[in-house]
Amino acid sequence: MNDIKINEDERIDDLQLKGLKIIQNTKAFCYGIDSVLLSDFAKEIKDGSTVLDLGAGNGIIGLLLCGKTNIKKAIGIEIQEDICEMANRSIKLNDLQNRFEMINGDLREIKKYIEKESMDAVVSNPPYKRENSGVINNSNTKIIARHEVMCNLENVIEAAFYALKEKGSLYIILRPERIVDLLETMRRCRIEPKNIRFIQPNQNKKPTMVMVKGTKYASSFVEVEKPLIVYNEDGTYTEEINHIYGIS
Amino acid sequence: MNDIKINEDERIDDLQLKGLKIIQNTKAFCYGIDSVLLSDFAKEIKDGSTVLDLGAGNGIIGLLLCGKTNIKKAIGIEIQEDICEMANRSIKLNDLQNRFEMINGDLREIKKYIEKESMDAVVSNPPYKRENSGVINNSNTKIIARHEVMCNLENVIEAAFYALKEKGSLYIILRPERIVDLLETMRRCRIEPKNIRFIQPNQNKKPTMVMVKGTKYASSFVEVEKPLIVYNEDGTYTEEINHIYGIS
Repeated sequence: MNDIKINEDERIDDLQLKGLKIIQNTKAFCYGIDSVLLSDFAKEIKDGSTVLDLGAGNGIIGLLLCGKTNIKKAIGIEIQEDICEMANRSIKLNDLQNRFEMINGDLREIKKYIEKESMDAVVSNPPYKRENSGVINNSNTKIIARHEVMCNLENVIEAAFYALKEKGSLYIILRPERIVDLLETMRRCRIEPKNIRFIQPNQNKKPTMVMVKGTKYASSFVEVEKPLIVYNEDGTYTEEINHIYGIS
Repeated sequence: MNDIKINEDERIDDLQLKGLKIIQNTKAFCYGIDSVLLSDFAKEIKDGSTVLDLGAGNGIIGLLLCGKTNIKKAIGIEIQEDICEMANRSIKLNDLQNRFEMINGDLREIKKYIEKESMDAVVSNPPYKRENSGVINNSNTKIIARHEVMCNLENVIEAAFYALKEKGSLYIILRPERIVDLLETMRRCRIEPKNIRFIQPNQNKKPTMVMVKGTKYASSFVEVEKPLIVYNEDGTYTEEINHIYGIS
């Protein structure tokens, strides 16, 4: 192992996948099941592909894709400098410097960092209330958050459109209450939704997440897949989740 | 019972709801579970409401709403004269002349028949390939059907927008592969999607239908409900379906 610095409040987690590890800050965002499920949803990405992660955070999705697929390269864009630096240490920890690169930058300025139409695939797990953290008067918190997120979502999809090759695909995960915004924005930005999969905590609950695959310039026909169920009635993981986590 | 004429190839079916009956032509379209589920999805319609059914066919949804709810009046628009006439005989058969009226007309010319912003709710179970029946060269059948259906769907939603009062709701059922078209068209026509419910044949199959409630001029927030499952694993109806059919 390289000589990687681990800061206070940080820990190393084992990804249970080909010995991969990730550095996480226990006081910041730690990855959740959403990133794991999105990586699995996107694992059809072809061997030798170049994949861009918009809002890559601690690099979890890129790490998982390096483990699950034979992609040539993952590139992550992350606006927060300290999180990006932490992701870079995870890349070194896993000796993935040749396959995974982090860029500290604003995805709204993607032209500075990424060549147009150079990516085979784009993945994104965009945060929900990113630009709302500084709001002091919270009387209109919900409305402000929603409108700012609208803007962010459009930025993400516009950046994906810019980066994707023709017929390249975007894989994105979001909350179901944003599904109209998401599908409408994707179509408007000419990344046509092709597959939709909702994620339910169990058979009897409404979905709490939705994953959408959209393809640049594709024709309009979408498949709504069967829901992905996380827990059985007895509280254990379903067979599919166990399979995704590599347990079964 | 009134002296209602029953033509050759027609039969009277019992709706298993407050003694309601329907006349159906065994060689034409007979109602299916989609109409029953849509009627149930829309049964929150307030007492005293006036409800419009766009493409009412044999009148099944209007009859079910008259049985399930305390709406003041249902109005159905149906372009096919013989089907409309048959629906009128079903209305007489059930003595519902005061609560249910059929109009033989084209929903694209709704202004001829319906006063603007006069409806509390609109329901629609639009056909999938209505305008495709005359296509002889079927090499481009799929494409032609899709494009013509696009047009039809937009017509339905535009007609609903015209007829609905402010804050009135549209309840519509369609195939899941049309969900992007549906949500995008509803938003564009200012009937904002508020509730989405997918219908699955069973727990392990992808949805085959989707119901959407949209409200005129509403704000953008949608709830994706838990899926409606039709069959248990053993092939019997689920509790919810039995409840909707009034069996349990």
